[in-house]
Amino acid sequence: MSDKQTPIKDFQVIGTSPLRPDAVDKVTGRALFGDDVRLPGMLYGVVLRSPHSHARILSIDTRKAEALPGVFGAVTAADLPSFTDAGAYQRYQAENALANQKALYYGHPVAAVAAINPHIAQEALGLIDVTYEILPVILDVRQAMAEDAPILLDDLRTHEAGSRSDHSSNVASHEQTSCGDLELGFSQAAFIVEREFHTSTVHQGYIEPQNATAQAHEDGQITIWCSTQGAFGVRDQVAEILRVPVSHIRVIPMEIGGGFGGKNNVYLEPLAALLSRKCAHRPVKMIMGYDEVLAATGPTSASYIKVKIGAAADGRLIAAQAVLCYAAGAYPGSPVTSGMDCIFAPYKIPHVQIDGYDVVVNKPRTASYRAPGGTNANFAGEVVIDELCEKLGMDPLEFRLLNGVQTGDRKADGMPLPVIGFHEVIQAAQQTPQLSAPLEGPYRGRGVACGYWGNYGGTSSASASVNADGAISLVEGSVDLGSGRVAIAMQLAEAMELPYQDIQTVVGDTATVGYTEGTYGSRATFATGWAVYELAQSLKGQLCERAALLWDVEPDQVGYGKGAFTNRVSAESMSLRALASHMDETGGPVVASASVHPSKEGPAFGVHIADVEVDPETGKVSVLRYTAVQDVGKAIHPIYVEGQIQGGVAQGIGWGMNEEYVYDEQGRLLNASLLDYRLPTSLDLPMIETVLVEVPNPGHPYGVRGVGEMPIVPPPAALANAIYRAVGVRMQILPMSPPRILEALWEKERN
Amino acid sequence: MSDKQTPIKDFQVIGTSPLRPDAVDKVTGRALFGDDVRLPGMLYGVVLRSPHSHARILSIDTRKAEALPGVFGAVTAADLPSFTDAGAYQRYQAENALANQKALYYGHPVAAVAAINPHIAQEALGLIDVTYEILPVILDVRQAMAEDAPILLDDLRTHEAGSRSDHSSNVASHEQTSCGDLELGFSQAAFIVEREFHTSTVHQGYIEPQNATAQAHEDGQITIWCSTQGAFGVRDQVAEILRVPVSHIRVIPMEIGGGFGGKNNVYLEPLAALLSRKCAHRPVKMIMGYDEVLAATGPTSASYIKVKIGAAADGRLIAAQAVLCYAAGAYPGSPVTSGMDCIFAPYKIPHVQIDGYDVVVNKPRTASYRAPGGTNANFAGEVVIDELCEKLGMDPLEFRLLNGVQTGDRKADGMPLPVIGFHEVIQAAQQTPQLSAPLEGPYRGRGVACGYWGNYGGTSSASASVNADGAISLVEGSVDLGSGRVAIAMQLAEAMELPYQDIQTVVGDTATVGYTEGTYGSRATFATGWAVYELAQSLKGQLCERAALLWDVEPDQVGYGKGAFTNRVSAESMSLRALASHMDETGGPVVASASVHPSKEGPAFGVHIADVEVDPETGKVSVLRYTAVQDVGKAIHPIYVEGQIQGGVAQGIGWGMNEEYVYDEQGRLLNASLLDYRLPTSLDLPMIETVLVEVPNPGHPYGVRGVGEMPIVPPPAALANAIYRAVGVRMQILPMSPPRILEALWEKERN
Repeated sequence: MSDKQTPIKDFQVIGTSPLRPDAVDKVTGRALFGDDVRLPGMLYGVVLRSPHSHARILSIDTRKAEALPGVFGAVTAADLPSFTDAGAYQRYQAENALANQKALYYGHPVAAVAAINPHIAQEALGLIDVTYEILPVILDVRQAMAEDAPILLDDLRTHEAGSRSDHSSNVASHEQTSCGDLELGFSQAAFIVEREFHTSTVHQGYIEPQNATAQAHEDGQITIWCSTQGAFGVRDQVAEILRVPVSHIRVIPMEIGGGFGGKNNVYLEPLAALLSRKCAHRPVKMIMGYDEVLAATGPTSASYIKVKIGAAADGRLIAAQAVLCYAAGAYPGSPVTSGMDCIFAPYKIPHVQIDGYDVVVNKPRTASYRAPGGTNANFAGEVVIDELCEKLGMDPLEFRLLNGVQTGDRKADGMPLPVIGFHEVIQAAQQTPQLSAPLEGPYRGRGVACGYWGNYGGTSSASASVNADGAISLVEGSVDLGSGRVAIAMQLAEAMELPYQDIQTVVGDTATVGYTEGTYGSRATFATGWAVYELAQSLKGQLCERAALLWDVEPDQVGYGKGAFTNRVSAESMSLRALASHMDETGGPVVASASVHPSKEGPAFGVHIADVEVDPETGKVSVLRYTAVQDVGKAIHPIYVEGQIQGGVAQGIGWGMNEEYVYDEQGRLLNASLLDYRLPTSLDLPMIETVLVEVPNPGHPYGVRGVGEMPIVPPPAALANAIYRAVGVRMQILPMSPPRILEALWEKERN
Repeated sequence: MSDKQTPIKDFQVIGTSPLRPDAVDKVTGRALFGDDVRLPGMLYGVVLRSPHSHARILSIDTRKAEALPGVFGAVTAADLPSFTDAGAYQRYQAENALANQKALYYGHPVAAVAAINPHIAQEALGLIDVTYEILPVILDVRQAMAEDAPILLDDLRTHEAGSRSDHSSNVASHEQTSCGDLELGFSQAAFIVEREFHTSTVHQGYIEPQNATAQAHEDGQITIWCSTQGAFGVRDQVAEILRVPVSHIRVIPMEIGGGFGGKNNVYLEPLAALLSRKCAHRPVKMIMGYDEVLAATGPTSASYIKVKIGAAADGRLIAAQAVLCYAAGAYPGSPVTSGMDCIFAPYKIPHVQIDGYDVVVNKPRTASYRAPGGTNANFAGEVVIDELCEKLGMDPLEFRLLNGVQTGDRKADGMPLPVIGFHEVIQAAQQTPQLSAPLEGPYRGRGVACGYWGNYGGTSSASASVNADGAISLVEGSVDLGSGRVAIAMQLAEAMELPYQDIQTVVGDTATVGYTEGTYGSRATFATGWAVYELAQSLKGQLCERAALLWDVEPDQVGYGKGAFTNRVSAESMSLRALASHMDETGGPVVASASVHPSKEGPAFGVHIADVEVDPETGKVSVLRYTAVQDVGKAIHPIYVEGQIQGGVAQGIGWGMNEEYVYDEQGRLLNASLLDYRLPTSLDLPMIETVLVEVPNPGHPYGVRGVGEMPIVPPPAALANAIYRAVGVRMQILPMSPPRILEALWEKERN
């Protein structure tokens, strides 16, 4: 269900919904994923992982393992280059790939072995002797921040804006954003709500586990086939970890079975390359079990968040304060700054202060997860806003119309917002069928929450050639996670004024296309789409020159439109297809390359509406109905835009209701399987209704703004607000799983 | 041993000899050839071939084969599209892939089957019932030309310039080139020699057999992995045979184990695609046995050639006539016109007439073989010239200095020759150590022959991007048969003024690079080298613009040289490597694409000197010493240029001395194995000495002229002329194998 508004112009291809070319191959099993890579002489690598979540590694002896028949070699951190002259970030990258001196989380790689088959490799793991000195475990972000907490990284000092502390700490950084005068603001407030929130560690839950096959050549070149969101990112990281020039590495991205931010980082890639180097330069293939995926790839941060918001009696927001403490896992790098950016972004508030702490704990190093950091922060902010609305006696959407940001408003960091469609989204939400549908019955409630995500631009490249049949072969650099090939090809088709079917698209690797950042930050359709728009301008210009040569006129006497050239002198016409068969006579094939690095992103706002029913006996929450309204900018492929929104909501519901990492006191992950880590299934989800509000982004040739991340931001807050309406408890912890709901209900009964 | 002359300028990279990047992978078995393609659900296809060399196919019944468990499907010509509205050439292409109504040679494909493994597929072949009506067999070109010869192709009419005969014929075309007045010319000649020559069918003898894996997708797209000299040529041909648009096909060229012209045509590719379509859209892999390679891929033409040449008493050539009859195999397309171009090309002759006939016979359709058609013609022409020199009492090289063509001379077809180095080559030959070395002993002789090859330009494309470490990733379209990646990357390095190691090169496929003709016609280093030269101009221009942005000056105030930019205003300097790390700040990565279609080729001339010893008891000829002198234009990579020459000579010696197809009277190939088809081994060959004469081609940015084909042109003639000096018999047949030598010696004794 798509509700289009304010189109820029009449499009021929944009706004239609052609089928994706990879669909049949994927459902028939023919699409080539990393597991399908089979090379002559290939070995299989496996990883020895730390059984301790915090331990000093006193010694590693791989000799018995290496002596096992069929084993070709083993690697440990001793096989990595020295990082004594490198920055901490680079060293952490390497240490996360292979623990050096200390294991910092359960599952931290300690060694890797390659053998002629995975069974022998597994057997060899048991022959590696590692001596550990077990250290105290810190899992909780606030415990880690305590003055007397055991220290994970001896060299880590708290980075404060403008200064650096002189003692070790688990707090990697503290940042603050502020505007106005917080004290003054709260002093003027008629209503103030202040609450604390906790969110658990959750994983992206992509279906395909991490995998990598590497071939290290004798001349130092390395080829890697893997499942990644960005081949160039893998290249950059492997180059950092192995300390080789980026151009010595070729990364070939295979088809990908989900990433959601979790496949931007490398895990197996550097190990496979190291093993290949050490094992007679044979190719080495490595595939994680799902237990390894959960235990040792990057989930997103657990967090502790404190929020205080004040409003005037007329409902206007006056002051807001937040403290966000995000668990980075074993090495610095939580998305706390994104959480800071998101938490009050939807609102005009004159007096704001936001503090963010990036804190290391004995959990796997966090990675991006769809709108990284946004969901945690938005949960806290929007639950407090809901309570404030209740105190004010205001309808939550009316409150947001009153306080919601508009184009040109400044965020707490002082940056003005570009053209946004938040108010259009709120108004569209007010018109949704769900909002006007009665919700009757006990234990039922309806909640709303809004959400924001800034989106990202970044570097993209593409190249193309015109075929003799007039179709265009496109090579673009964005790994296709969720129909990117289609959405990018459609923009080239639109720009070339050709049917979508006339564009044949492949995703290039690091050797065959220019630098392109990964498919993250809701950037692929936006930035790579822009790159192919530029490509089209070059192709059309060259084709007009060729037509001019054939007609013996000047290029500016040739017009182009809808797949045909016009001779403005003679009024003759020639189809692109006809011209394409004359390439050699006019100088050879028409080819073009383009790259872009757009800096004007298009932020996305959304409003989500959730209807729930709570079973007071079991604490189980059923999501009865769900509508997601979002300003998607110009929707290139509306059906896949809806799919993105539905996917994000599904993940947000999982995060809100059930997903969490369960550790024992020693920091061992107890639910490292998809049976025990409770992803939502189709039985847990209603049909997710979507409303696409199209406020074109003037900072893109076709008005695209990012779509994919925003939908995961509002769900936990919307569900929490619905649960409050259903049973009167304000949930301040994620997931809002049955035991937590029951605890809250019992607590409410007690008071 | 390289003897460089007349360098254009000081080069930094060109003229050095770096190692090829594929070498280690190829010797260790890691390089990925077609046989290494392994896809999920892949089937194996095999071909049923005609056991008759001329037969009508009355019926084919594949039902029993298809019913065999494990078999997924079978295809016959009935599975091809209709060609009723298509041209004859296109139909012949399809009929050669799968015989329709008639089998025209031993080994002609009649059906193909795909099964879960090759054994079941082979078993299924035995279950296909084919009913043949056997027809009379024509193997010899002159028999095929006889008025009453059985006709192979009922629709074939002799194409005469300007007219078309109205009756069926085995003569596909008759062309004539002439200049001057032949009768007048011969009337003025003091010496005339007229001889007839026969050459046998010979094969390129590449080591890797043909192979192809195809995936036909449900949406009509087809992906093909194969061993080919040109991915785009495979695409064009499969598109013709299956009648689908070229852009619906993606061809991925794997590493190639030799081609020499024999891997420009498709054999298995369309069958694998048809089978994939029919077999549940599973990928289908097909690999020929070497018996199939010899029996059913394209060898080069057997030929009958008649030559008459007249010279004045002072040694000047006056008139020359030739009739060339080339056996095309089962369908038209022998290289007779190239033979016509070659036969008198080295000489200034005022009165010339050359007739060429392209004739079908019941042998496999011929394909290109290194300087296609040139060796046959040159053998005839240079043996007659040698006899003429003898009659004139002139030294063969002095004769060639007197009569040899120079820049600007016109060929028989009226075309003027561009800058050539024939006289420089003759003079260099006069200085070779071999020529001044005494050759003593009985049955020993020294022969010389010259040779010409026109070379070819054609379409090439490339694209590139600048990496953050300053190295350049290059995608070029020329399949690497004999170090092309190196020779092309060196030209980009030279143009970029960077070390060779800073260029990372991959060969693109039809989806990832612009149209590029195959690696044939000695064109890859020439034309694709030119494309990367153009690419460098674009990259340098863009990089200067970026440097100008950083320096806040105009682009024309930025200079570039030896990997560094200079600010002409401030005299600041910045390395390309330093600039490369600032790409995003200046608009994104620098990427470029280029294509060329050069029409000015650089012809190559050579002189070969052979010393032989003939065993009069057995007829065995030993090649004692061999020197090849050639104008190679500017030698990009001298060691690989020498390797090309040595390889061409080795093949020319094989062709001259031993190789031939042996058929029985029913047209069955009797020596379809590499045990019986006698390729030269290292024991048959001396060290082949080379002299590189470098007369730069002004029609190329770096003076490149083609190298690879010319070396196969002179050997049989040089050997024949040496044999004459050794034992006094003028061989007029190829191969000059022991029985033929003995026959000639016995014939001489009889007279």
